[in-house]
Amino acid sequence: MLLSDRRIPKTQEELVKRIDHTVLKPEEGFQAINRAIEETEKYGFRALVIPPWAVKEAAGISRAKIATVISFPLGHDPIDLKKVQVERAVGDGASEVDVVINIMAALSGRLEYINREIVELTSFAHSMGAGIKFILETGSLNAELIASISKMVAEAGGDFVKTSTGFGSRGASIEDILIIRKAVGEKQGIKASGGIRTGLQALLMFAAGADILGASGSIRIMKEYPQALSEFKV
Amino acid sequence: MLLSDRRIPKTQEELVKRIDHTVLKPEEGFQAINRAIEETEKYGFRALVIPPWAVKEAAGISRAKIATVISFPLGHDPIDLKKVQVERAVGDGASEVDVVINIMAALSGRLEYINREIVELTSFAHSMGAGIKFILETGSLNAELIASISKMVAEAGGDFVKTSTGFGSRGASIEDILIIRKAVGEKQGIKASGGIRTGLQALLMFAAGADILGASGSIRIMKEYPQALSEFKV
Repeated sequence: MLLSDRRIPKTQEELVKRIDHTVLKPEEGFQAINRAIEETEKYGFRALVIPPWAVKEAAGISRAKIATVISFPLGHDPIDLKKVQVERAVGDGASEVDVVINIMAALSGRLEYINREIVELTSFAHSMGAGIKFILETGSLNAELIASISKMVAEAGGDFVKTSTGFGSRGASIEDILIIRKAVGEKQGIKASGGIRTGLQALLMFAAGADILGASGSIRIMKEYPQALSEFKV
Repeated sequence: MLLSDRRIPKTQEELVKRIDHTVLKPEEGFQAINRAIEETEKYGFRALVIPPWAVKEAAGISRAKIATVISFPLGHDPIDLKKVQVERAVGDGASEVDVVINIMAALSGRLEYINREIVELTSFAHSMGAGIKFILETGSLNAELIASISKMVAEAGGDFVKTSTGFGSRGASIEDILIIRKAVGEKQGIKASGGIRTGLQALLMFAAGADILGASGSIRIMKEYPQALSEFKV
């Protein structure tokens, strides 16, 4: 069965708890973060995802769960610098970190390095009481790499495999989610992200196997979702 | 006079000393870094610009001047984390750092923050004996912001104002260089970067006021440059 309804939220209450409300594009400005803080509190989105420099200020004015991105969007910092970034983010008030894997290292065939990165950072984030997601940037990887790196995340105990940064050649695809879900089994968390703008796209990501999704246009998704659900329910 | 020949390299020896040979795209892989190390030594480019995680390994196999990028390409890390990244890069063997300014902060009108970032990081990098460039990402800024932030770099003593990351909406334009040069006067270093692929583009950047440029296709530029110079000399 390719698509399934086991992860499909059935109500708005369920849906909002599965959306990470996200502001990462520099052009949106801090005013977009302020607006997203209000929206996250108003609608009860799962978390607010913002750039590292904004975490401390946002944590001072919001009680929403805050996540930030590490070595974003290329993942090209040394492993121990990623740790320093995680440490600072948690100290500033983030309770989850979305870490970009070293994409160049992955594409250079250095999979032992990628595995070390995933193992060390998972253990480090968890020791600080923070959740951790690993962003693969699926648009840059072939299916084989997506599957093998997803397995590394699952084996290391990383909380979520996350597809995309939103700054790469493309965002999440249905195929990405199917490949990742097949690789990691049913229990591993998967976050679909990048280019998810409509209620129907959101529904398809859940049906393909995503547990949560990241979006800037969470309000539009929320509004369109009931109709998508009634018209296209798997 | 819009264009001038005062900064135009007249020979290949002069030209190569004005090109930072650059490998930053994850898709190019570490093999591209190895190739660029050889090319930098063979042709005598000004410096080799590579991602932070690759500095230590490259410094172990090359005597070329190595530069790396900090908080690249969004510049959205807190100022003190950028310092930690600079410290580590220099410790690993980089003698220059190309730091992305906090683009979101700039677009949010937080220019005091940007000024503090520029002042603190310049002083920090210089205290470690390293050169520092500030990448503005001109494609995201209007002419007024480009001019005012360029002035901050000049006043802080930053070594170069650098136009673009190569990952933004566009690369360096002739207009960018003219705006920056007008804002900072004749003595400030300017680096044109992003999308510079031909000998003629390189020539125009120098004629508009750039001191150096960054490119991945440095070999092509080097080969095309003499003809551009003979056909289009300002």
